[in-house]
Amino acid sequence: MSGTDSTQTEPGAINRQWVMAERPVGRAVRESDFRLIDGPMPVAGPGQFLVRTLYLSVAPVMRQYMLDGAGIEKPLKIGEVMRGRGVGKVIASNHPDYRIGDVVQGKLGWQEFSVSNGSPYYMMYKVRQRLVPVSTAIGVLGMTGFTSYLGLVDVGQAKEGETVLVSGAAGGVGSNVGWIARNLGCRVVGIAGTAEKCRHLTGTLGYDAAIDYRADDVAAKLREYCPDGVDVFFDNVGGEILDHGLAVLNRYGRVVCCGRIAEYLKAPGETYRLRNWDAIGRQNATMRGFFVYDLAEHFARAEQQMAQWIADGRMHYLEDVLEGIEHMPRALMRLYEGRNLGKQIVRVL
Amino acid sequence: MSGTDSTQTEPGAINRQWVMAERPVGRAVRESDFRLIDGPMPVAGPGQFLVRTLYLSVAPVMRQYMLDGAGIEKPLKIGEVMRGRGVGKVIASNHPDYRIGDVVQGKLGWQEFSVSNGSPYYMMYKVRQRLVPVSTAIGVLGMTGFTSYLGLVDVGQAKEGETVLVSGAAGGVGSNVGWIARNLGCRVVGIAGTAEKCRHLTGTLGYDAAIDYRADDVAAKLREYCPDGVDVFFDNVGGEILDHGLAVLNRYGRVVCCGRIAEYLKAPGETYRLRNWDAIGRQNATMRGFFVYDLAEHFARAEQQMAQWIADGRMHYLEDVLEGIEHMPRALMRLYEGRNLGKQIVRVL
Repeated sequence: MSGTDSTQTEPGAINRQWVMAERPVGRAVRESDFRLIDGPMPVAGPGQFLVRTLYLSVAPVMRQYMLDGAGIEKPLKIGEVMRGRGVGKVIASNHPDYRIGDVVQGKLGWQEFSVSNGSPYYMMYKVRQRLVPVSTAIGVLGMTGFTSYLGLVDVGQAKEGETVLVSGAAGGVGSNVGWIARNLGCRVVGIAGTAEKCRHLTGTLGYDAAIDYRADDVAAKLREYCPDGVDVFFDNVGGEILDHGLAVLNRYGRVVCCGRIAEYLKAPGETYRLRNWDAIGRQNATMRGFFVYDLAEHFARAEQQMAQWIADGRMHYLEDVLEGIEHMPRALMRLYEGRNLGKQIVRVL
Repeated sequence: MSGTDSTQTEPGAINRQWVMAERPVGRAVRESDFRLIDGPMPVAGPGQFLVRTLYLSVAPVMRQYMLDGAGIEKPLKIGEVMRGRGVGKVIASNHPDYRIGDVVQGKLGWQEFSVSNGSPYYMMYKVRQRLVPVSTAIGVLGMTGFTSYLGLVDVGQAKEGETVLVSGAAGGVGSNVGWIARNLGCRVVGIAGTAEKCRHLTGTLGYDAAIDYRADDVAAKLREYCPDGVDVFFDNVGGEILDHGLAVLNRYGRVVCCGRIAEYLKAPGETYRLRNWDAIGRQNATMRGFFVYDLAEHFARAEQQMAQWIADGRMHYLEDVLEGIEHMPRALMRLYEGRNLGKQIVRVL
C-alpha cells in the first residue's frame, strides 16, 4: 500500500530535531553541545517513505560522530541533525517494499520524523517479531543484541564449558551477554562500575559472578572467579580493564574488542598504554574488532535464537527508558556517567 | 631396516652436550649461562632410534626456555641439556617407522647424538625433499619457513594486491616473508635494524622497500612506503615497532603476532606499554598469535609450495652458518645482538 495515512500528520506539523550546537570538549558530552529545534516536516518524495519515530537509541559511539577526527563515520557538522538509530512506523510511502504500518529500525536521526529511500545508508531492517515490544528492535532484538550475540558466538567462538569475561557488563551490549553465555553453557563473569550494577548482573542478567571495578581488587577477584582463566573476553571498555582481562587470558583465548568507552572519554594522546598486549602472541590468542553490520547475514539467526530464549524465560532484557525526545542529550550523558541500567533508549511517541 | 650402523659410532664415543649453567639475567644471554660437557653416548632402546645431529637451529625463544617463569614450555632446570630443534640422520633404530639413513628434523637438543621414540614430544618430521640441502629443514623448509608461510597465508590471510609489513624482516622468519608475499602478489615492506640488513631486504630478500628502525623516522617512512596503509602486519618484534604498525593498519587489517624479540630482552615489569591497541577495535582488525605446530596439517602444502618457488628461482633463502657445536651459545647471542643475516644455524657434523 502506498500513500499517506492522514491521521498521522497534520499541515504545519513540526518535526522536533536535535542538532549539534558545539563539538564536545573535555570529557563526555554537555547539554550545551546540542540544540533542540523545530524543523520542517519532511515529505516522502518518489521512491521514499516517511517514518514516525517511536523510540530512539543512544550509544557511546555517538560522541565519536561529533568529533572532528578520524572515526568510523564522517564527523557531523555544526547544525546537523544528530545521527542515531531508532524504531519507527511507516506513515507514508512511495516505496514498493515499505507499506504504511510497517515497523522498521534504522538510521532515523534524533528527530520525530524522517524520510528514507531504503538505501544501505539508512541500514533499515523490518521488525517482524511481535512477541515482545517493538522497542526491542533498538535493543536486545536489534543491533545491540545482535552485537552481543554475534560478538560472543561468531566473533568470540564461545563454547560450552568455557569461561567468559564481560566488561561493561551492565551496559547495553554487556547486559545481554550474560544470558547468551549462560545459555551456551559457559561460566560468565561480569565487570561493572557500581555495587548496584553488580547486584543486577548476578540477580537479573544471568551472570555467575560480578566484579565492581571501582571497589574491588580486580586482579584478585578475577583469580577468584575465573580460577581456570578466561577463554573469551568480551570487552566493551578497553584501557586498564582490557589489561586485567589479558592478564588472565587462556591459551587460544579470544578477546572481542566491542567497545572502548574508557577511551572515548579521553583527549587524543591521552590513550591508555596497554601493558599485557604480549598475551596475544604468548597465548596464541586472538583479539578482534568487528562491525556488526558486516554480519548482517546472521541477524535473522541471532533474532530467532534470542526471541526463542526470551519466550522460554531463559533470557531477560532490561531497557532504561527516558520519556520524551527532549531528554536525548541527557540520555547520552547518562551513558558517560555510568548511570544507565540496561539499554538506554528514549521513547519519542 | 632396524639395527645399528656401526661405522657411525664407536665404543667409548662421547656426546658433546650444551647444558644450562645459569639462568640468564639482564639482557640477552651470556656465554657463562651455558656449559659444554662430554656426555654419555645414548643408546636406542626398544621402540627408539638414535639420531646423529647434522645441524642445530637457534631461535630467540630459547632464552625463554631458560627463564623460570610462565612460558609456552616448562623452563629448563640448571644442568639440563639445552632444548632445541635440529636436523639429523638416523644411525640406529628399533622403531618400525624410522630407518637407518632417514633424515629427520625434530627436538634433538643442543647435542651431537640423541634418541627418540617418535612421540609427539619430539616433534619429528621426516625430511623428504632433496632438491636443496637438508639444512633447510631447520630453516626455509622447516618450522621457520612454515612459520613464515603459514603465518602470512593462513593466519594473516594475505591476498593479492594487499600491502604487507614485516618487522624483524632480516631475521629467520622475516627473511622468508618477503618472497612469499611477493609471490602472492602483495606489496611488501620490511623493517630491520641496520642499513646493511635493509640493503639485503630489497636486494636479496624480495622486499619492495625497507625501513631502518634505528636510523629512519619509522612513522614517516611507513607513510611513504605504505601510502594505502597496511593490510597484513607480520610482526616479529613487538613493542614500539608493533605500535608503528598498528598506527597504519587498514580496516579489516590483520596483525600476525609471530615474535616479540624486543620484549624477550626485558625484565618482567619492563614490558613496553602499547599506545595504538585501540586500532584493533576501531579498524575491525584482528591480532593473532599462533603456534606453528598447531598448523601441522598444512606443513606439506607449505613445503611443497616453497620448494617449487625455490626451484623456479622465485624464492631465495639465506642461512647464517657457524661451524661446530662449540659455537651454539655464540650463535644464540648473535640473534640478540641483531647480527645474523638469515636463519642462524650451526653445523654440527
